[in-house]
Amino acid sequence: MTTPKLRLHIENARKKNPIFHTLPEHWQAACKRHKALAKHIGAVSFGWDGDILESVLPQTHLVIGVPAQRSNLAARAPHLRWLHSTSAGIDGALPLDWLPRGVTFTNNSGAHGHKAEQYMVMAYTLLNTRLPGIVANQQARHWEALFSPSITGKTAVVVGLGDLGEAAARAAKKVGLKVIGVRRSVQKNRYADRVVSYKQLDKVLPLADFVVLAVPLTAETRSLLNGQRLDLLKPSACVVNIARGPVLDQEALEQRLRKGRLAGAVLDVVDPEPLPANASLWTTPNLLITPHVSCDDGEHYIDISLDLWFENLELLLAGKRLKRRIDPKLGY
Amino acid sequence: MTTPKLRLHIENARKKNPIFHTLPEHWQAACKRHKALAKHIGAVSFGWDGDILESVLPQTHLVIGVPAQRSNLAARAPHLRWLHSTSAGIDGALPLDWLPRGVTFTNNSGAHGHKAEQYMVMAYTLLNTRLPGIVANQQARHWEALFSPSITGKTAVVVGLGDLGEAAARAAKKVGLKVIGVRRSVQKNRYADRVVSYKQLDKVLPLADFVVLAVPLTAETRSLLNGQRLDLLKPSACVVNIARGPVLDQEALEQRLRKGRLAGAVLDVVDPEPLPANASLWTTPNLLITPHVSCDDGEHYIDISLDLWFENLELLLAGKRLKRRIDPKLGY
Repeated sequence: MTTPKLRLHIENARKKNPIFHTLPEHWQAACKRHKALAKHIGAVSFGWDGDILESVLPQTHLVIGVPAQRSNLAARAPHLRWLHSTSAGIDGALPLDWLPRGVTFTNNSGAHGHKAEQYMVMAYTLLNTRLPGIVANQQARHWEALFSPSITGKTAVVVGLGDLGEAAARAAKKVGLKVIGVRRSVQKNRYADRVVSYKQLDKVLPLADFVVLAVPLTAETRSLLNGQRLDLLKPSACVVNIARGPVLDQEALEQRLRKGRLAGAVLDVVDPEPLPANASLWTTPNLLITPHVSCDDGEHYIDISLDLWFENLELLLAGKRLKRRIDPKLGY
Repeated sequence: MTTPKLRLHIENARKKNPIFHTLPEHWQAACKRHKALAKHIGAVSFGWDGDILESVLPQTHLVIGVPAQRSNLAARAPHLRWLHSTSAGIDGALPLDWLPRGVTFTNNSGAHGHKAEQYMVMAYTLLNTRLPGIVANQQARHWEALFSPSITGKTAVVVGLGDLGEAAARAAKKVGLKVIGVRRSVQKNRYADRVVSYKQLDKVLPLADFVVLAVPLTAETRSLLNGQRLDLLKPSACVVNIARGPVLDQEALEQRLRKGRLAGAVLDVVDPEPLPANASLWTTPNLLITPHVSCDDGEHYIDISLDLWFENLELLLAGKRLKRRIDPKLGY
C-alpha cells in the first residue's frame, strides 16, 4: 500500500509581474531538485485568475497562490490542508476571517532576504553619498562637488526584524553601521547591537542616521512613522521604506524633505501603487523612488519560493508544524 | 644637544574644495595625536597659492602640497628633502622633470581607500539594481517594475590594484562578486580571486559584469578602456570609473550606452572637469555621473592625510625609505 498522493493546485494572477508566475517549467525543475518529496504529490493543476478553480478545489489538498475569491472556502475546498501565499506581505488578504479552521496558511517570507540585503546595502551607501542630490544636479547639468563623510559608525534604526528587517540589519553591519532593532518581542538578534520594543521607538529615533521600515502592514503598523515621529529624527537623518507604503505617513515625509528638515529618503513602496503620474511625491527633493523591486529576485524568485515550499512540504508530511505560518490574530 | 628641528611649509590652493585645505587647526590636532614625532618639527608656515612661498622655501625642509610654480625648485628650496602631495593622483604634475634629485616625492594614496570602498559598494549594487533606469523613470513620473537578479556570483574586473583598486576589490567581495584584478606586476591580492597582467586585459573583459577603472593616469593608461575594448564587454556589463576621466574613451562609452550596447555606467571622473553644462554626457541613458567625490572623506580628509604624513615622518627621521613614494619613471 502506498500513501495517497496529495493534489496540488497552483493559482496565478495575470496582473502580477511574470517573475511571480509559477509555471509548469518551474514546478518540474523544483521536482527534480526535491525528487523524494515530489513523489508525494499527485495531480498538479495550474490556474489563472480562478479559471479552473471551482473544478479543482473539491479534490485539492494544497494550494499555492491565494485565490482572489476566498469566501466560503471550507465548503468549496473540503480537503484543503495548506494554502501558501507566494508573497511575504499578505495584507491584501486581511482580515483573515475567510481562512477555514484547520487550514494552515503560510507566506513566502525567506524568499526576499537575500535581495533585500543587497537593496539595503545600496540604500544606506547612496543616501550617505548624497546621491539623490547628485542625481538632481546631473538632471540640471550642474557640476558641484557634494562631498560626504564616511558611513562607518553611523546608526541605523531598523523597525521590524523579520526576513526583511534582518536583511536590513545584516546590510547595515556590512557597511559598518551600528544597528538598533525594533520589534514586538524583544529578543537578541545577531545583526543588531541592541533590540528594543515598540514602546521605546520614540526614544531611539533621535539616535538614527538611517531609519528603515521593514514591518508587515497591519492595523497596528499603519502610519507607524508619522509626522510626529519624523520630527524626532535628526535633520541629517534619512528614511528607507521597504515594507508597505501606508506604514509611513508619506505626505509628512514629503513636507519635511521639501523643507530640508530631513536629509534624504529611499522609498521602494508608496501609497498608492502604482504611484500616479500627477503625484507630487515624484519630484520631492532628496527622494529616490524605486518601483517595489527591493526584495524580489528578478531571475529566480519562483525557484527560491518553491524550494521554501518543499521545505514546508517535508514538515507537513512528517506531521510537524510548518514554518512561515501566518498567525490569524497578528495578521502576519 | 638636540637634533635640529625640521621646518615645514604647508601650501594650500584656494581653488580646491575646502575639505582639502590643511589649516592650522588640522595641524595642531594632528600634533596632539603624534606628540613625540611633532617635537621634531620647528617652524610651520601656511601659504595660499604661493603667497609666501619664496620667503619660506630657502629655509624649508618639508613641504605639504605641491606648489603651482615648480620650475627651478632645487635653487629655490636648497634644503628641501620631502615634498608631499595631498592628492593621490599626481597626473597634474607630470612629467616630473621639475623634481630635484634627492627630494622624495610622496602622494596621499591610502587616504582614499575607505571612502572608495563605500562608493564602490554603492556603485555595484545600484548598477545591479538598474537604478539609473529607475531614476530616469522617476524623472518621467513613470512607475515600471524594473526587477533585477541577485548580484551574488557576478564578476568584477578591477583595473589597477593600488589603494583605489584594492578598495574596489574589497567592495566587490563584500557584495558577493568574483574579482579579477588587472595590474602591471602580477602578484596575489587577498581581495582578488585572480590577478592578471595588462597583456591579458582583453581576455578578461568578456568575463566582466562590472569593469572598474582604478589606475593612475599616465601616458600608458590614457584611453585604456577605448571603444575596441568596450566592444569586448557583454551587453549586460556595466562600467565604473573612479580613476581619471581620460583613462576611459568617454565618447565611445556614451555611444554604446545610447545604443543599448552596454547596460549601465557610473562615472565619478570625466574629461573635462567640471563637465560643461552643454555636454551630451549629462543625459546619456543608464549613466550616473558623480562629481569626483568617490574617494574623499568629506569630514576627515585632512586628518587622515596628516596621520599618513606622520607615519612617513617617522620613517624619514629613522632614515628609512618613505611609503607612497612617486616613481618618477612610472609617474605614480
